Amino acid sequence: MRYRAEVFVTLKPVVNDPAGLTIRGGLHALGFDSVTEVRAGKYLVLTLDEPDATEARARLDAMAKQLLANAVIEDYRIELEPVGEPVVAGDASA
Amino acid sequence: MRYRAEVFVTLKPVVNDPAGLTIRGGLHALGFDSVTEVRAGKYLVLTLDEPDATEARARLDAMAKQLLANAVIEDYRIELEPVGEPVVAGDASA
Repeated sequence: MRYRAEVFVTLKPVVNDPAGLTIRGGLHALGFDSVTEVRAGKYLVLTLDEPDATEARARLDAMAKQLLANAVIEDYRIELEPVGEPVVAGDASA
Repeated sequence: MRYRAEVFVTLKPVVNDPAGLTIRGGLHALGFDSVTEVRAGKYLVLTLDEPDATEARARLDAMAKQLLANAVIEDYRIELEPVGEPVVAGDASA
């Protein structure tokens, strides 16, 4: 089964976020004064083929721990949805 | 009212994503061969004070167009949820 996974990688709340502060500063400079905080993170969309959702989630968890997130300073969250079987050659869908 | 907004900024599907390709290569090198595609994007969490959700969404849309996303090569999606009134001095919540 093919799955589409969204992985959200965010800095832990106690970690300084200079990118977020810069974005907030830019928004204030543009007049968006209602913004009190901005936290910047990564948004990864993975497509993967796994036998079932349990296995897919376990693999994604391992990927996040080993490569996608830095556990010392970052948290991550995974959302998973099936997207059907892999597209085969000659398939009419575009 | 205080709102928490999630802004997901992704490259348009037709745009090359070298960061995503590099992450996919890293995952394959670690043995995660089931991953067929990785797309890398930005995940921004904003806290803002606006009178209502309609106004908040309009402001966020303007922020995305002016600063958060590059409309030429990127798409964005906004999710919004109220988080109650601004925290006041002396509030006991931590």
